[in-house]
Amino acid sequence: MKVVVIGSGSWGTGLAQVLCDNQVDVTIYGNCAEEIRDINENHRNSKYFDDVEIHSSLRATTDIEVVRGADIVLLSVPTIAIESVCKQIDPLLNKKTIVVNASKGFHPETFERMSCVIRKNISEEHLSSVVSLIGPSHAEEVVIRMLTTICAVSLNEEDAKIVQETFSNEYLRVYTGNDEIGSEVGVAIKNAIAVASGVLSGLGYGDNTRAALITRGLMEMTRYGMAMGGRKETFMGLTGIGDLIVTCTSKHSRNFQAGYEIGKHNSAKYFWDNNTKTVEGVRTAKAVHETAEKMGIDMPIVSEIYHVLFEGAEPSESAKRLMLRDLKTEIDL
Amino acid sequence: MKVVVIGSGSWGTGLAQVLCDNQVDVTIYGNCAEEIRDINENHRNSKYFDDVEIHSSLRATTDIEVVRGADIVLLSVPTIAIESVCKQIDPLLNKKTIVVNASKGFHPETFERMSCVIRKNISEEHLSSVVSLIGPSHAEEVVIRMLTTICAVSLNEEDAKIVQETFSNEYLRVYTGNDEIGSEVGVAIKNAIAVASGVLSGLGYGDNTRAALITRGLMEMTRYGMAMGGRKETFMGLTGIGDLIVTCTSKHSRNFQAGYEIGKHNSAKYFWDNNTKTVEGVRTAKAVHETAEKMGIDMPIVSEIYHVLFEGAEPSESAKRLMLRDLKTEIDL
Repeated sequence: MKVVVIGSGSWGTGLAQVLCDNQVDVTIYGNCAEEIRDINENHRNSKYFDDVEIHSSLRATTDIEVVRGADIVLLSVPTIAIESVCKQIDPLLNKKTIVVNASKGFHPETFERMSCVIRKNISEEHLSSVVSLIGPSHAEEVVIRMLTTICAVSLNEEDAKIVQETFSNEYLRVYTGNDEIGSEVGVAIKNAIAVASGVLSGLGYGDNTRAALITRGLMEMTRYGMAMGGRKETFMGLTGIGDLIVTCTSKHSRNFQAGYEIGKHNSAKYFWDNNTKTVEGVRTAKAVHETAEKMGIDMPIVSEIYHVLFEGAEPSESAKRLMLRDLKTEIDL
Repeated sequence: MKVVVIGSGSWGTGLAQVLCDNQVDVTIYGNCAEEIRDINENHRNSKYFDDVEIHSSLRATTDIEVVRGADIVLLSVPTIAIESVCKQIDPLLNKKTIVVNASKGFHPETFERMSCVIRKNISEEHLSSVVSLIGPSHAEEVVIRMLTTICAVSLNEEDAKIVQETFSNEYLRVYTGNDEIGSEVGVAIKNAIAVASGVLSGLGYGDNTRAALITRGLMEMTRYGMAMGGRKETFMGLTGIGDLIVTCTSKHSRNFQAGYEIGKHNSAKYFWDNNTKTVEGVRTAKAVHETAEKMGIDMPIVSEIYHVLFEGAEPSESAKRLMLRDLKTEIDL
């Protein structure tokens, strides 16, 4: 079994180290020479993990040719790069390969789910199936081998099991799932809700408000996912509420942090002027807001975050609007 | 409208202050003379809220006769005291009264829900209906008027609306609900899961593990609640996942803290030797474990916590057993 991880960021590094621990043949491909050298020579990925020492046998390269002959290619790049990466690797694949998606979000223009983007851009003869490896998992904890549970979600049950067996060990527990739509919608939308959660914290709201936000966020995420064809139960699982909790309550989350800064400054301007990192929740808010408008799905949290991010709405006013809606019965799926 | 709050603890004080803010006639009854004096003379309840100043017009008394003529009696006492309090106040009521339950748990011996205990112990001619006022709400935040959302849950829709209108204001948002079983089971079981969450933190597990625990906890809470006759959707709401999150992720929670100590010492002994506070999750674990055994409901988290609390199981071993169960598909409602 040969695995290539595309992307030398935190999650790519964390998952590649899991495979080293599992004695699987794995190489990271990345286009940042400095990160690659850091991994190979210092056994570190200091940009993301400070001075955490990583597995000494983990190898990385800047040569994309490494994907030739891979049984599994794992894509751990920003959603915005998935299409071009697929186009780049497709001609290099030479057999039916399992493509594992670890990105959470939608295509920036077509708003398609990642699995759809991958299927569109990898030729049929090179693709066994797409398996999404997603769930509540800060890379910062996986890299120091803290117990984490995630899901291998695929329409192809056999491939999901192969991915489950390849990645599972005593600190990474992989469940299988087959609700591709529900799971991908869940892990994408949670990033937008996490921005909102950060905004509330930045504005000074407390734990009670956050619990309310997460609860209402789960409700609208489920509503949206069901409208897309996902199953309600999925949103009660690791790729729904699980990932939502971990992203909304932890300072490890870039989405939460971006929101926190926006709340602190009571404006998105500071974020737009200074942010250099990939904050998936920002793009997701746009994709989901525009799709929801078109389809008539009620998404109050995502829409307020969209107004704050893209239309100059004042966060404190948005928060009030959101939290002080008319009182009514609670469950409205 | 005359309201009497039974219980001068943190939640009773917080809710009574809400009514002061809403200009409702309210008095707290409590049996601890020191707390009562602190409220009346110092406008504080220092035992719970350090030096937070509370509403200067809030009155408290040690004279139970105060319940005579009340339109609403709110019970905010430990679950273990609900039955005796009902027996104490029933002869003093002189009309159909709305009894609001703010306690979360089961009767210590019969394992009945609080609403059932109240209906059993307040004569029909004195009871309009039972309304449970429950949801994700640390009293410490409500008392400083941080935005909080909770539910007024009742089989009597009209009374639920009266409670909603009486308690709602711009920082306390009250939704109505009618799934009495689902809501009461949710807010009770979350205390036992919160003990487990504290144990994991005390043992050194991180955010990823906690998200997994909460997710699996929601699953088993839902399974139990549905077996009792509750509705699945309720567990996705404020009295399900909402209350579960706030209790499992906040150090305000006594249940979490009790678990944390147990995890730190890798034994429940220290807790049993030193604890003097009401930790509802401990009793709930017993009630739920024994009921689940009898009814054949799979409750792995609650059962492990039961073993730790009552049978001397080692927390670190329980955590491993719990988190390293056989890999399988995830959703098993």
